[in-house]
Amino acid sequence: MSRKIAIGKIALLLASLAEEELDYFRPTLKELSFCQGKVGSMNMQKVISAVETAAKRNGIIHESLYRETHALYHAILEAIKGVTRDQPAIGEMSRTVGLRFSVVRGAPYANEAEGEWISVAFYGTIGAPVKGLEHETIGLGINHI
Amino acid sequence: MSRKIAIGKIALLLASLAEEELDYFRPTLKELSFCQGKVGSMNMQKVISAVETAAKRNGIIHESLYRETHALYHAILEAIKGVTRDQPAIGEMSRTVGLRFSVVRGAPYANEAEGEWISVAFYGTIGAPVKGLEHETIGLGINHI
Amino acid sequence: MSRKIAIGKIALLLASLAEEELDYFRPTLKELSFCQGKVGSMNMQKVISAVETAAKRNGIIHESLYRETHALYHAILEAIKGVTRDQPAIGEMSRTVGLRFSVVRGAPYANEAEGEWISVAFYGTIGAPVKGLEHETIGLGINHI
Amino acid sequence: MSRKIAIGKIALLLASLAEEELDYFRPTLKELSFCQGKVGSMNMQKVISAVETAAKRNGIIHESLYRETHALYHAILEAIKGVTRDQPAIGEMSRTVGLRFSVVRGAPYANEAEGEWISVAFYGTIGAPVKGLEHETIGLGINHI
Amino acid sequence: MSRKIAIGKIALLLASLAEEELDYFRPTLKELSFCQGKVGSMNMQKVISAVETAAKRNGIIHESLYRETHALYHAILEAIKGVTRDQPAIGEMSRTVGLRFSVVRGAPYANEAEGEWISVAFYGTIGAPVKGLEHETIGLGINHI
Amino acid sequence: MSRKIAIGKIALLLASLAEEELDYFRPTLKELSFCQGKVGSMNMQKVISAVETAAKRNGIIHESLYRETHALYHAILEAIKGVTRDQPAIGEMSRTVGLRFSVVRGAPYANEAEGEWISVAFYGTIGAPVKGLEHETIGLGINHI
Ligand SMILES: [Mg+2]
Ligand SMILES: [Mg+2]
Ligand SMILES: [Mg+2]
Ligand SMILES: [Mg+2]
Ligand SMILES: [Mg+2]
Ligand SMILES: [Mg+2]
Repeated sequence: MSRKIAIGKIALLLASLAEEELDYFRPTLKELSFCQGKVGSMNMQKVISAVETAAKRNGIIHESLYRETHALYHAILEAIKGVTRDQPAIGEMSRTVGLRFSVVRGAPYANEAEGEWISVAFYGTIGAPVKGLEHETIGLGINHI
Repeated sequence: MSRKIAIGKIALLLASLAEEELDYFRPTLKELSFCQGKVGSMNMQKVISAVETAAKRNGIIHESLYRETHALYHAILEAIKGVTRDQPAIGEMSRTVGLRFSVVRGAPYANEAEGEWISVAFYGTIGAPVKGLEHETIGLGINHI
Repeated sequence: MSRKIAIGKIALLLASLAEEELDYFRPTLKELSFCQGKVGSMNMQKVISAVETAAKRNGIIHESLYRETHALYHAILEAIKGVTRDQPAIGEMSRTVGLRFSVVRGAPYANEAEGEWISVAFYGTIGAPVKGLEHETIGLGINHI
Repeated sequence: MSRKIAIGKIALLLASLAEEELDYFRPTLKELSFCQGKVGSMNMQKVISAVETAAKRNGIIHESLYRETHALYHAILEAIKGVTRDQPAIGEMSRTVGLRFSVVRGAPYANEAEGEWISVAFYGTIGAPVKGLEHETIGLGINHI
Repeated sequence: MSRKIAIGKIALLLASLAEEELDYFRPTLKELSFCQGKVGSMNMQKVISAVETAAKRNGIIHESLYRETHALYHAILEAIKGVTRDQPAIGEMSRTVGLRFSVVRGAPYANEAEGEWISVAFYGTIGAPVKGLEHETIGLGINHI
Repeated sequence: MSRKIAIGKIALLLASLAEEELDYFRPTLKELSFCQGKVGSMNMQKVISAVETAAKRNGIIHESLYRETHALYHAILEAIKGVTRDQPAIGEMSRTVGLRFSVVRGAPYANEAEGEWISVAFYGTIGAPVKGLEHETIGLGINHI
């Protein structure tokens, strides 16, 4: 079984690159369904909600199907673990995040029977709730859908 | 305090992009000290060791200074948390990783007094110890050095 | 040393079976001290508090003895880890739980000197704070008391 | 959306009840695809492998499809978190497990579009690598498949 | 490379010993920069904030340098892991802490090039939010600065 | 309920102070049952085993009672979390520890009904498996027994 499209890498580039930096990758984007967004918060619930809302509004997942919500939720959770690297409680740990995110849905494997997968990527900053006291952070989650 | 160079983003691109995809970013790379490598294993100790050895051989950190080894080790550890998203024991959890990695050292902040920082990025696959039963994974760690 | 009564299994059945399904196990229940309850919340503190209050009101633990409160608290904490499987912050992670629980106290080992032990079980659902977007979850904690 | 069959509860009963105790639940079992097994080890890789092998041999998952292997793996991982309640490294933490397990596949939701889900349950003992120095433990994982 | 001053041990003694018990260790304290404080809360953000504020007010770290704030933050985070031993959410887990803390900055290694390091220690109680239902707890974090 | 003897603090001093530094605290030690030891390893199982063996050989716990082994094991596990601050797998994470430890058993509370408690303390170094590339670490666990 070989991979056809790296939906994780694409999600990460969508979350971290500027518009002009993305030009090189536009052809691949055409084969995929994706959305992008931004969220800044000391509350992880707001981060999760921003991604879920964007994915539903842009038709990346079927809003009324729990199995799709479930697939997305666990992909978000995995991506958050990369962002926080310790425990997902951010406000409680006196941290704030400023993140760009993306959700990508597509068929990454050459074998059609492997079906669709979803990836969630975050790129931005994490740090003290004081402007500038922060450094970069990244997270990626992938799930079958 | 504003950021001058996104050493985390650069590290991630170095780990995930192909040679030709990196062309757009070459000017920024000139301001930084960095190295790249590859490692595949079911043993996290080998992954850590591959990054440490590459960073020392390429002069990214001073081999004989513990404070630099310490800064790098914790950056690696943070990046591994993004890669595994659960617990870093891979073989024990019946998983294998195939990763490209990079280590970037530079001054990310406009204020010179903020000095040098180090970032470690991983990009590759994680999955069952069977060829093809795997999906993408990413991790990033950042530390002051 | 052999086991006489499986207080963990009994706690789990008390939390997960319907009244009529429990009939088969009633004889064993007579040898034990136990209580049952229900709690639904996005706040783990309410879940913990519901179990502690039920255990005290039903005389399963001695309210004024810290060593018994301590034994119960750690059994609850262990059971919660099974329920959340990631980190116990539920509301922060945009999750809600609807749980039935039980606390069982008794002497599980044939050797009388092993004394009393306590077990806490949860059974119910965990999911998005939207009715129906949820799946089953279970947790069990055991401690000497 | 309402639930039709509690595949998590069924999995748990299959792992924890004796043959005669299961009689009451046999009618429900007919609507589901499931398997049972046993494993004892100080090595979590053996536990994971035992469940994966049983699920494949009994046709609960399609061996050649990674998306099914992926769904099962994450369900196993969640169930293990309930079993260990701390970190999944058992031998490293001087612990051994003796477990019965089950894998159940079926359609738990009334809405047909929710499709199939898989649940993995463990029931048994965890303790020091000395006979008898152990207590009960339980774990449950659930995933869409 | 050998150690000259055990800044971790000193931090711990500053957090846990009474004034008169510290007499024996006063000569060592003269070579170091340190501060002490107290905090009681069900909210980890208050604990973190108390340590950061004390360290800045007493000039242990340079308030305007993010690299020093970053070094201190990660040392606090490590110390908190010793205090909570499970996950840092205290209020959410129905726990309260009453802690004395200290921050010590100095050059622990004989080799001057190893420069300055910082250590954070906590000593006090953790328990139910009821007076007396608590036991001792300790935590130590160390970082290069 | 007030505390009579701080068994956690005593355990920590036993693990971290030199013989002559302990003189001040000898009167308190007479009221307690305790042992001390040393262990260095990249394998956490050896660390756990060293503490358990010392506690049994010195009669701090009753070897044949599982409830005492259980109380000690969980106290060790809590102390290890302070030592590693991330995950207890040390060799797998390319780390080695060199630790002194102590186990203290006694009645810490004024109320006699609170009975006996046990505390385990570690003090030493953690770092790369290279002499000198290490810093201090501390851990404390407490349990009712
Ligand atoms: Mg996966
Ligand atoms: Mg950081
Ligand atoms: Mg236990
Ligand atoms: Mg789930
Ligand atoms: Mg360190
Ligand atoms: Mg406790």
